[in-house]
Amino acid sequence: MPYFDAASAAPLHPVARQALLASLDEGWADPARLYREGRRARLLLDAAREAAAEAVGCRADELVFTPSGTRAVHAGVSGALAGRRRAGNRLVVSAVEHSSVLHAAEVHAAAGGAVTEVPVDRSGAVDAGAFAAALGEEGAALACLQSANHEVGTAQPVAEVAEACRGVGVPLLVDAAQSLGWGPVEGGWSLLAASAHKWGGPAGVGLLAVRKGVRFAPQGPSDERESGRAPGFENLPAIVAAAASLRAVRAEAEAEGARLRGLVDRIRARVPELVPDVEVVGDPVRRLPHLVTFSCLYVDGETLLHELDREGFSVSSGSSCTSSTLTPSHVLRAMGVLSEGNVRVSLPAGTAAEDVDRFLDVLPGVVAGVRERLGVPAATPMAGSGAVAGSGAVAGSGAVADSGPVADSGAVADGVPVVDALVVDALGRRCPIPVIELAKVIGDVPVGGTVRVLADDEAARLDIPAWCEMRGQEYLGEEPSPRGGVAYLVRRAA
Amino acid sequence: MPYFDAASAAPLHPVARQALLASLDEGWADPARLYREGRRARLLLDAAREAAAEAVGCRADELVFTPSGTRAVHAGVSGALAGRRRAGNRLVVSAVEHSSVLHAAEVHAAAGGAVTEVPVDRSGAVDAGAFAAALGEEGAALACLQSANHEVGTAQPVAEVAEACRGVGVPLLVDAAQSLGWGPVEGGWSLLAASAHKWGGPAGVGLLAVRKGVRFAPQGPSDERESGRAPGFENLPAIVAAAASLRAVRAEAEAEGARLRGLVDRIRARVPELVPDVEVVGDPVRRLPHLVTFSCLYVDGETLLHELDREGFSVSSGSSCTSSTLTPSHVLRAMGVLSEGNVRVSLPAGTAAEDVDRFLDVLPGVVAGVRERLGVPAATPMAGSGAVAGSGAVAGSGAVADSGPVADSGAVADGVPVVDALVVDALGRRCPIPVIELAKVIGDVPVGGTVRVLADDEAARLDIPAWCEMRGQEYLGEEPSPRGGVAYLVRRAA
Repeated sequence: MPYFDAASAAPLHPVARQALLASLDEGWADPARLYREGRRARLLLDAAREAAAEAVGCRADELVFTPSGTRAVHAGVSGALAGRRRAGNRLVVSAVEHSSVLHAAEVHAAAGGAVTEVPVDRSGAVDAGAFAAALGEEGAALACLQSANHEVGTAQPVAEVAEACRGVGVPLLVDAAQSLGWGPVEGGWSLLAASAHKWGGPAGVGLLAVRKGVRFAPQGPSDERESGRAPGFENLPAIVAAAASLRAVRAEAEAEGARLRGLVDRIRARVPELVPDVEVVGDPVRRLPHLVTFSCLYVDGETLLHELDREGFSVSSGSSCTSSTLTPSHVLRAMGVLSEGNVRVSLPAGTAAEDVDRFLDVLPGVVAGVRERLGVPAATPMAGSGAVAGSGAVAGSGAVADSGPVADSGAVADGVPVVDALVVDALGRRCPIPVIELAKVIGDVPVGGTVRVLADDEAARLDIPAWCEMRGQEYLGEEPSPRGGVAYLVRRAA
Repeated sequence: MPYFDAASAAPLHPVARQALLASLDEGWADPARLYREGRRARLLLDAAREAAAEAVGCRADELVFTPSGTRAVHAGVSGALAGRRRAGNRLVVSAVEHSSVLHAAEVHAAAGGAVTEVPVDRSGAVDAGAFAAALGEEGAALACLQSANHEVGTAQPVAEVAEACRGVGVPLLVDAAQSLGWGPVEGGWSLLAASAHKWGGPAGVGLLAVRKGVRFAPQGPSDERESGRAPGFENLPAIVAAAASLRAVRAEAEAEGARLRGLVDRIRARVPELVPDVEVVGDPVRRLPHLVTFSCLYVDGETLLHELDREGFSVSSGSSCTSSTLTPSHVLRAMGVLSEGNVRVSLPAGTAAEDVDRFLDVLPGVVAGVRERLGVPAATPMAGSGAVAGSGAVAGSGAVADSGPVADSGAVADGVPVVDALVVDALGRRCPIPVIELAKVIGDVPVGGTVRVLADDEAARLDIPAWCEMRGQEYLGEEPSPRGGVAYLVRRAA
């Protein structure tokens, strides 16, 4: 049963399992104690720290183990901000950081701190120059940038940003959770956080490196463990397993990375050929080797995941319907790409090529099935990569289209008052229905005419402009809808 | 090789090992995901929560798993204090709480909060009435009381204190780390924290229960995991192992508790018979079944631990010389008992009676050896339980005794100016030397005469009064010493 969600959690690497078992017997005692069981535990802990530090590219005394990557990020952000309090209170982050960074930023902001979010381009990458400009804002105290994005795989220009940080004396914390198994983070970073279960280590272990010379004041209660930076009894067997597996995956990283990159390239190339109306997102070259993400128009992400699961494929999604908050992934939002029918495939080490082929065999039928059940007319011009939505008849089910020109309530595009040709009322309907209804009616207005889509689903804000971008239609903007929700204005351009 | 430090960390219970192994295969995926591996992980997590909640005596939705007992305490204290901010900012704790509670209290105090420490008696127990009185102080927001002390085993009057808390509407957080494996905490507590590796579960798992209706506002960054109370990827295999082993140790608790209590009673009775000048501390009846603590006069705790380790026994100590801060345990200090030569024996489940017997065989020789090397005159009247230090000749090595009456620098005892018969200069000497030097010279002053001990070792502040208590001498008090350090005044009473 192929598991394609390594970016959430990788299955335990055989070396991790072996090391864990061995250290359950040797490493259960308190490494702070002086008796033989304690000394043995201390030796294991010291050796694990040496091994992890070597893989990270730092000194052993710069690295502590935390209970998770999330806790490493939280401790790193709060400690570095507190250490730099005199320099200022501004935290600079990319808009596509992992939620652990953004949650830490929220807490900082709630406590009166300033936060600057650096936007990303459509590939998900920050511009190093824009990041550097943000560092110039008043009171910049700490910058955070991931090594590579966890949802779309795009690598960030960490070395350039680190250089810019160094130039202005602002420490850079790199969230290396997704990339550390593939190699060390290049460049002159100041702090680094990572998570063992992302590289095939066990759950319960993160790591935080703080370079010597970086001002750091751990926040919250601390104790004598882990240099006062991570309180609580060390999870030693898991730490040993984490360090051992990091070495092991690194030894395999070059060959396995190249192999998985080939499989991912196959997915990137074949999915748009096999499935109509798909957007493959993320940088095609500067990216993680094992991760590829695409979004399927007119598809409900949750149903798509269920159907793939039934076929035996475990993948994840940034679609709003798969989120507990019913909002699309902040990463896709920041990129401005389609979020509906979103699928992230992240291949664990050892993934068989046949499993990827079978995924490519199965996917088109699954997507077509979901679309059919949602009432997307099959084989209409709207299906077909790059095709422009045409004049297909409005399907019976779905939103009511108030056809006929309607006096506009004041929207202005390019200085010319907009007269709606059609209003689509998708209030109360969830993603992907508003987009489906828009696609159904766009052919009914003349070229140059507009459609006004009323929707209150958060995903529409992202997906209607993304649909316009994909289909060559003109997105005019949004305005409050008198009936509640938001009115999205689209002009038929083609 | 007998390991007698279960109170630090218990060896992994066979059920924990079994459950851990099984869930490495079944429980590595993200329980928040919808695919089969995620659903399987979710089932395991839910079942573990049910099992742990049943053992704790709370609802499953009141319990979250944390990365350690320490983190459970930190999260519990900060969340409950924040939730009660409107009621006040006073935290009431016993003086003998685990350092995790006291560290949380320090952070609270540093942020401007008030902290009241309720003292304990010589057995280590708080008085429920005194605790209730402290709850009446202005702005009481949260109370913390351990179920039983981790260093001396004394059980606290949790049910009575919980009753008092309920009476004034102050939530009680119980640190049940040492007792949860032996049984649920009685009484109407509001929050409870515990640690799996204390009951034979794996490291990396704590638990925090917060009863419905308790105002609770988690502090710091949070995410959607563990009800927003413990961020970061769940350490699921360890959680499953923790819950399974808690059930298992509970099933054995009554029989094994009775058996270990018998072994501990044997140690409590025999040690003072076998070893001269020993104080067994902690309540003899209301206590943990598996833990006993005693202190040996004129003994260096670190050397004692080393020698016991060489004989194959792993124990811990609250002596200053075994602490990284070189201060005696705050628990022994709060109890006012001797800290030098302190030994804590905490028997893991399954401890063989023969191992305890061998410990009792070995201990007297080990203590005698340490005393001999420290220059404590063997077989002088000072050796011998209850004997009063007599007129033995001052041993050649050790501190210089400035004999002859010295004009007192102004100390007053009972309104009568004190004239020192002897000054013992133990400045720069570490525990147990100041007490040894005092014992050597006390016989040289007439009954009613005084000895002034100059010392700068923190342990002297505790051990000189404790020695007086044990030896029937009169402790007059301390004052700053003109030569630096502190002058401790002792009057020869017998």
